[in-house]
Amino acid sequence: MGPRLLATYRLRCAAADAPARAQALAIEQSVEMPPEAIGDPALRARVLGTVEALETDPADPDATLATLSLASETVGADPVQLMNMLFGNCALQPDVTLLDARLPEALLAALPGPRFGAAGLREATGSGEGLRPLGCTALKPQGLAPEDLARLAYAFARAGIDVIKDDHGIADQAAAPFDRRVAEVQRAVDRANREKAGSHDPLLAGHRSLYAPHVSGTPARVARQLEAMRNEGVGAALACPMLMGVGTFVESLRMRAGVPIIAHPAFAGGQIAPSLLLGRLFRLFGADATIFPNWGGRFSFTREECLAIAAAAREPLGPHLPIMPVPAGGMRVERCGEMIAAFGLDTMLLIGGDLLSAGPAMPARAAAFARALHEAAGGIGERAAAAHAQPLPIRSPSR
Amino acid sequence: MGPRLLATYRLRCAAADAPARAQALAIEQSVEMPPEAIGDPALRARVLGTVEALETDPADPDATLATLSLASETVGADPVQLMNMLFGNCALQPDVTLLDARLPEALLAALPGPRFGAAGLREATGSGEGLRPLGCTALKPQGLAPEDLARLAYAFARAGIDVIKDDHGIADQAAAPFDRRVAEVQRAVDRANREKAGSHDPLLAGHRSLYAPHVSGTPARVARQLEAMRNEGVGAALACPMLMGVGTFVESLRMRAGVPIIAHPAFAGGQIAPSLLLGRLFRLFGADATIFPNWGGRFSFTREECLAIAAAAREPLGPHLPIMPVPAGGMRVERCGEMIAAFGLDTMLLIGGDLLSAGPAMPARAAAFARALHEAAGGIGERAAAAHAQPLPIRSPSR
Repeated sequence: MGPRLLATYRLRCAAADAPARAQALAIEQSVEMPPEAIGDPALRARVLGTVEALETDPADPDATLATLSLASETVGADPVQLMNMLFGNCALQPDVTLLDARLPEALLAALPGPRFGAAGLREATGSGEGLRPLGCTALKPQGLAPEDLARLAYAFARAGIDVIKDDHGIADQAAAPFDRRVAEVQRAVDRANREKAGSHDPLLAGHRSLYAPHVSGTPARVARQLEAMRNEGVGAALACPMLMGVGTFVESLRMRAGVPIIAHPAFAGGQIAPSLLLGRLFRLFGADATIFPNWGGRFSFTREECLAIAAAAREPLGPHLPIMPVPAGGMRVERCGEMIAAFGLDTMLLIGGDLLSAGPAMPARAAAFARALHEAAGGIGERAAAAHAQPLPIRSPSR
Repeated sequence: MGPRLLATYRLRCAAADAPARAQALAIEQSVEMPPEAIGDPALRARVLGTVEALETDPADPDATLATLSLASETVGADPVQLMNMLFGNCALQPDVTLLDARLPEALLAALPGPRFGAAGLREATGSGEGLRPLGCTALKPQGLAPEDLARLAYAFARAGIDVIKDDHGIADQAAAPFDRRVAEVQRAVDRANREKAGSHDPLLAGHRSLYAPHVSGTPARVARQLEAMRNEGVGAALACPMLMGVGTFVESLRMRAGVPIIAHPAFAGGQIAPSLLLGRLFRLFGADATIFPNWGGRFSFTREECLAIAAAAREPLGPHLPIMPVPAGGMRVERCGEMIAAFGLDTMLLIGGDLLSAGPAMPARAAAFARALHEAAGGIGERAAAAHAQPLPIRSPSR
């Protein structure tokens, strides 16, 4: 692999110190020793990180944007080593954040990317002809027994929710062991899907809901969970790449799941720009959809950051399919129109707690959510579809 | 598992807002939905996180230390799920850092902990009778061919360095594929060890150096690397838990390596107190030694943070052995005395670039490093041994 990776970091330091700081970072992220102590000049030229550009951060005069180039050969094609080269040691340096990374074509092509992409996820759901936003919700709380989770899933599926995922806090715990939970929930969703086949409601007739259990834990546990999913005919999976590790995510999940994978941002931290990590990198590692905390909810991502994640999910990226942006994190049914206007029709909205909070009225609220998604396709949808076709630049985290 | 975990977070918010912020965090890290929407009061009492204590951070009047309790049953015994419960979603909230976590005895006992511990690592090296600090160095830079790395390793081993590890930037790249590299380096170290057996220098006679290759990548790659190590009789391993993922670290490495494991802090980030992550958690996941960036080098850890990591490596922790603290990160031979005085004799000092910078004088400088460790055992060592016997409290990151 000849060409080099380009990685852009924000350095919090006085402008006068930026050239030396950037040079020190280039050493830290490559040879990690004084360059003058490398006897062979050809080796030094090949592997030493180099400072390609420095500019004052337009958003912050006390910070510098430094673009370094790193040798592709130091990555190979391993996702773990890619993260190491981009942000291994400097993750321990509080003055550094990683904003952007552009990989040469050969390296892009060596990473798996999504198997299904946004279109494949859409096809796996029964969302029918025509482009409309998908709806996703979560089974919670952790601690519920399998039969209670199955009851919830049935109600969501009957209401017309496209994707019903486990809460990411539900793992393989004693209250709902993976095998029993997945069997019960999938059967409940199957039953609802069969019932909808004969529905007179045009929004439900033929609608097919998809269950996405949370696959987690050590690699062997992930393998056992995939086996259980196959036995039950489960059609999607939820996973947290930063918790299971990107190597396990790629090898144990992306290469073996055989169903669309929805990535969850838990443990992603605040030191890598979310557009890069949750958008571009999760996509390169094989996510078909990426959940992120939308603005105005329980998290502090800005509107600009969220739009940049969606752009990174969709922009050209070597040979890889676009993936589905999934805004989430304290969203309410009343915000559907606003979110669809911002993200476009080829988006999946995730609303969890707001549906469950309705108590006995949960089925009605879930149905209102599903209806809002259908209505969006006819109304503001067209303006939004045009808007989201424009990729936005990768932008930095505001933190 | 009955009793609950206690996790202490620092919340950056006005004191008046702290009770509500802590309550929101307790929800986020457990049920992730409005508690009043959980119909079953017994379930709510069982799984909902609760705020156990709030106090203004003694180090920062604009921050609050919030101690939450979380149900052990939500963790099970999975290291990945432990990280999820402690810091999953709130890793995305910039006002939260994780300072401390105390696990109930049953959960401590369910995690593997170190197989060899500090004493086992010491025994695997040929450091001889009596307690003296161990010396560690690194093979670098990445990009060197196996025969060049082997030449370096031979010189280090002949100089009396106890542990010779790969730079953590050396993975399984084309310049030095794992199998060939490990075979060549281990044979060079074996040869040096045989030669030392007959040495007339009392510091070298019978001294045995240990090679610790960097094991990295996806789980299958880790398994292949361990196989190659076994074939060559390699006696230790280096790994980055936060890059490979703690699940892979536990399952693919700790449970299968059969040799002492040295944990490297790459990708650990700045949102979890290093004493907790690099000290206590890496130890619980199976590290026998933990590398951390010492104060006064290229990183910004404070003296207090470094001493707290060492304390966490050694303090009582359920059934688990103490592990070896390994201060590193831009250290110089001239600082050996200071470091040994601070960390005590049962410490491994890691000095890499400073030895390589000596160029043709590298063997002499490496020998000076080894000599400093022997001399320490007779001199300031005794005072230091007394000092490090006092465990220090887990302290927060300064960032």
